[in-house]
Amino acid sequence: MAKHLVVFQPSGRRAEVEEGTTLMDAARNMGVDIETICGTKHTCGQCKVQIQEGEFAREGIISSMEHVSALNPDEVKFLRRVKEPNMRLACVAEVRGDVVVFVPERSRAGRQVVRKAARELVVEVAPAVLKYYVELIPPTLRDTLGDQERLLDALHAVYGLEGLYLDYRVLRELSDILRASEWKVTVSVWRGREVQRVESGFVDDLYGVAVDVGTTTVAGYLTDLKTGKVVATESMMNPQVRYGEDVMSRITYAQEHEGGRELLTTAIREGLDQIFTNLAARKRLKPTDISEVVLVGNTAMHHLFVGLDPVYLGKAPFPPVLHHSLDVRARDMGLSSLHPATNVHVLPNEAGFVGADNVGVLLAEEPYNQDEIWLIIDIGTNGEIILGNREKLISSSCATGPAFEGAHIKFGMRAAPGAIERVRIAVGGRDVSYRLIAPPSRREEVRAKGICGSGIIDAVAEMYRAGVLLPSGRFAKDLDTPRLRRGEDGPEFVLAWADETDVGADITITQADVRALQLAKSAMYAGIKLMMRRLGVEQVDRVILAGAFGSYIDKVQAMTIGLFPDCDLEKVYAVGNAAGDGARIALVNAAKRDEADRVAREVEYIELTVEPDFERVFMEAMYFPHMKDKFPHLEEVLGRAVGA
Amino acid sequence: MAKHLVVFQPSGRRAEVEEGTTLMDAARNMGVDIETICGTKHTCGQCKVQIQEGEFAREGIISSMEHVSALNPDEVKFLRRVKEPNMRLACVAEVRGDVVVFVPERSRAGRQVVRKAARELVVEVAPAVLKYYVELIPPTLRDTLGDQERLLDALHAVYGLEGLYLDYRVLRELSDILRASEWKVTVSVWRGREVQRVESGFVDDLYGVAVDVGTTTVAGYLTDLKTGKVVATESMMNPQVRYGEDVMSRITYAQEHEGGRELLTTAIREGLDQIFTNLAARKRLKPTDISEVVLVGNTAMHHLFVGLDPVYLGKAPFPPVLHHSLDVRARDMGLSSLHPATNVHVLPNEAGFVGADNVGVLLAEEPYNQDEIWLIIDIGTNGEIILGNREKLISSSCATGPAFEGAHIKFGMRAAPGAIERVRIAVGGRDVSYRLIAPPSRREEVRAKGICGSGIIDAVAEMYRAGVLLPSGRFAKDLDTPRLRRGEDGPEFVLAWADETDVGADITITQADVRALQLAKSAMYAGIKLMMRRLGVEQVDRVILAGAFGSYIDKVQAMTIGLFPDCDLEKVYAVGNAAGDGARIALVNAAKRDEADRVAREVEYIELTVEPDFERVFMEAMYFPHMKDKFPHLEEVLGRAVGA
Repeated sequence: MAKHLVVFQPSGRRAEVEEGTTLMDAARNMGVDIETICGTKHTCGQCKVQIQEGEFAREGIISSMEHVSALNPDEVKFLRRVKEPNMRLACVAEVRGDVVVFVPERSRAGRQVVRKAARELVVEVAPAVLKYYVELIPPTLRDTLGDQERLLDALHAVYGLEGLYLDYRVLRELSDILRASEWKVTVSVWRGREVQRVESGFVDDLYGVAVDVGTTTVAGYLTDLKTGKVVATESMMNPQVRYGEDVMSRITYAQEHEGGRELLTTAIREGLDQIFTNLAARKRLKPTDISEVVLVGNTAMHHLFVGLDPVYLGKAPFPPVLHHSLDVRARDMGLSSLHPATNVHVLPNEAGFVGADNVGVLLAEEPYNQDEIWLIIDIGTNGEIILGNREKLISSSCATGPAFEGAHIKFGMRAAPGAIERVRIAVGGRDVSYRLIAPPSRREEVRAKGICGSGIIDAVAEMYRAGVLLPSGRFAKDLDTPRLRRGEDGPEFVLAWADETDVGADITITQADVRALQLAKSAMYAGIKLMMRRLGVEQVDRVILAGAFGSYIDKVQAMTIGLFPDCDLEKVYAVGNAAGDGARIALVNAAKRDEADRVAREVEYIELTVEPDFERVFMEAMYFPHMKDKFPHLEEVLGRAVGA
Repeated sequence: MAKHLVVFQPSGRRAEVEEGTTLMDAARNMGVDIETICGTKHTCGQCKVQIQEGEFAREGIISSMEHVSALNPDEVKFLRRVKEPNMRLACVAEVRGDVVVFVPERSRAGRQVVRKAARELVVEVAPAVLKYYVELIPPTLRDTLGDQERLLDALHAVYGLEGLYLDYRVLRELSDILRASEWKVTVSVWRGREVQRVESGFVDDLYGVAVDVGTTTVAGYLTDLKTGKVVATESMMNPQVRYGEDVMSRITYAQEHEGGRELLTTAIREGLDQIFTNLAARKRLKPTDISEVVLVGNTAMHHLFVGLDPVYLGKAPFPPVLHHSLDVRARDMGLSSLHPATNVHVLPNEAGFVGADNVGVLLAEEPYNQDEIWLIIDIGTNGEIILGNREKLISSSCATGPAFEGAHIKFGMRAAPGAIERVRIAVGGRDVSYRLIAPPSRREEVRAKGICGSGIIDAVAEMYRAGVLLPSGRFAKDLDTPRLRRGEDGPEFVLAWADETDVGADITITQADVRALQLAKSAMYAGIKLMMRRLGVEQVDRVILAGAFGSYIDKVQAMTIGLFPDCDLEKVYAVGNAAGDGARIALVNAAKRDEADRVAREVEYIELTVEPDFERVFMEAMYFPHMKDKFPHLEEVLGRAVGA
């Protein structure tokens, strides 16, 4: 029987399957979850997927359907071909050739566990937009003052406001609103100068939205700008994922595809509009009730949602188009769900690889107000590092690669139900226990499908401590455990036996997986060491793990593999989505934006790869740390744990 | 044979014609000039007209073609039906029913004589946009400053410019331009703060366009902003003419037709884009080379090109949407020929009926800097009046109606070839001589078709002085001249016998025509008298006739009918398109814009109709002046003339 390569996006899972296999079966074999309610009886229509081979990459448009079976009458009633070109039901369509299949978010059964909840922030409530209610005296033949001037005069008389002007789009709708409201209106004034909204009658509500545009996840926080509290949170997978999983692949897409940059920009803007609409609906508002938006993201995301060319971010010397914060009107950014006059504030970038999201982290943590030396690391495809205190702050970025996110790992997967997220291995490597991500209601049924990022760190750290791995990262030779064996790709260690899994195979950590993790942690560790040298410090007083991933890794395990230098573990902690927190701070308190612009310029960016002995430091960092020598705090903690 | 009503737009000429008459013949019989080169042999395609009956008024879209003959194969090759719906050749299409026919400007043989030439102005050259050339040091791995900051730093280092920011659309194209130009660029800075253009290499040219948007004619002046000189002039009929000839009919159209306001706004904006494109082409430029635009127009035109709702301008108490000047980006105004970041400056309005065009007149004439009492009148469908000096200026508007433009006059027509523009009548009314508008090359062939505005004033003034008209405006009873006769509409006076004309009929001035002119001049005169009373002055020191029409009327004749009060005729003069001059002044010298805003607020607008004895003054002003009593200067001049 002929075999064909099937690739599922956005997970990137790929395998050869026999001709005639349904896409649903292929997905299950590869651990790709596709929603089904009817159990593949062709009756629920939940398993829609999009066929994308061939033409996809070249045109952004898909036309060829030859590599799957012909459309079946069962499918037709579920498919709206004009709006959803090349959609098929995964339980019906069969593989006839090599094919790329995109699984839309709504068809993903194990939707990503979004770990971007909002935490409580302490920040003075002083938003950019304030509302003022005024009642105007209507014009008469003896008082024919124009509508704009009548409004501005009243704002001056009642509130002492001066030097205001109306945004062009507000001006266009002014006359009708004044008359429809019988000259009683509520006026939104942005930063004490620009009128951005005129609403009928007395309107007390004041809402804004802070958005953290991550490479993978976009999280929006609807915030009550009178209290500063988050009143609704929405998140979604970044819609750009279909054009590339990571930052570099999207920059490449923008560069190599005619109109690619516009496609990426349109994708994220449509996603943002969806988030605004969903957030507003949660509080029975209209998206046009949102008075302001603050956006953060890494430089590539920043450039793409702003509509700037990201190509030079991917070419040495990697300069950004701009550093400074931006205020762009919603209409200029093509955010059509918002009122066209709404301001969109974008936090500044520090450098080509250290973006507005990192500035958000700075605002949230304020290392620039500290005496202690703080190390803040934001772990993702790129590791972003800030080091220093009130006297000097330096930042850098290191290419950790996607290993921390489960990519390029044989059984790697996203942090979704069925992922191994915690691992314990007894010394000697015989006994392994693990914990799976699972919704509480389905905890009993969920079986292992793969390993997510925190699970990989856990597994490797435990393998090292159990003696399965040597400090060099090689597997130990003569260990008496059936879990350590020679696989088809070299030595591997079995975390879960096939009968415990949902994928019909042993879930293993291979030598290549260990190497991938070593490269990632080495990039991070070497970067930190070089920065410490630049700053002239021997040790750090505090390690702050920013980003969703930082919240889910076990800090002891992370230190065990040498992800960051030794530090009192009491002073190592995660702050979750600090970038999003920073966006919320800048949303709630407009003065913080000036602070952000100042700090973003003060932080000195270090390009690590041009440091003279970068390669030597990087190679040394590949090793797992010898605990006693360099990690006294870790030794202490682990000693206690063993002794207990 | 059946007869059908045919109406030609924009002239408004209407007549019943026999079924089967070609549109070209119908047009000729009515004095509507349609271009033809082949002489109606169906071979030149110059005589395209658009059929607009029925559906036109209701939908803004035309569908019915039943009232003209079916499409003839001869026509098809000249017509692009998709782009030009319902276009026909006038020499082919025959009348089959009542029909409204629009004659596009390009098909009009006797194109309007545009009387909006630019005059020399003395104004300091200090435009809003200045250009700066800089050469940047490209980024390296040790200097990864962002593109925007690299540019701004260089502008600061070389020129000391501070606090600049880039317009959003400039930012979007910045990176590519910097690299394509090898980091050598010319930067356009608007008002010392906003970067509105970054061009490759060294660019020395600096151009702007001033536009006077008249109700009938739109005139644009391409101006070299280094010298202040006009280097090209373009004018066109206001494309809104198809939706109504005068201001009120357009306001009504905006109000009564779904989407009417947008249609009017789109029409004028497309016209402006055409003017920018034509002006640029005249100097081998691209319209995107235009650095700034300044617009003036009456309040209705202002509201429509800005995109504001003009409806309240047409309803008591007639307030404008705004007074203050506006700076709108070309992209917001939908001016797609310009670079999207280009600033469009719109001069302020004084009041609901005294618009930015009048502010332009103020800037050009500066009555606010005079000791003498000046009277400035801008004669059009609305007469706009300014009276006063440096101590106080008042303004008003009077509804003169369209008589001065030849409308509502039996043989009235625009100032186009064939129009009687000057008349002399000997005492007794037997001998009449007149002069026609004609291109020099065709002076011999042109024959009378009608009477334009200045011709009507001439004719009535001469009829009065010749004794044909009494001071009340009635025709004299027992005059011995065949020219004074009883026509079908009452008494009338023959200016041109049928055999001298191109319309196959005697061209006459009827009693109704005289009444229409009396109403128009009375509105103007009564307004001036009421304003003089308000200001407490008995006479004016100077009378300035602004507007194209003011340049073409004979000031002695105008004073004879009592269009304005007595004044030393040496001090009565026309200044042509002073509104356009004001726009040019504000274009060339940005500081004049602040002056305009200040003056526009200082001028006190008087609503004449609420003056207690408005009606009495208006009725008195209907009479032609008794020269000796009230017009000593006129008496003197006319006395000399008679004596000569």
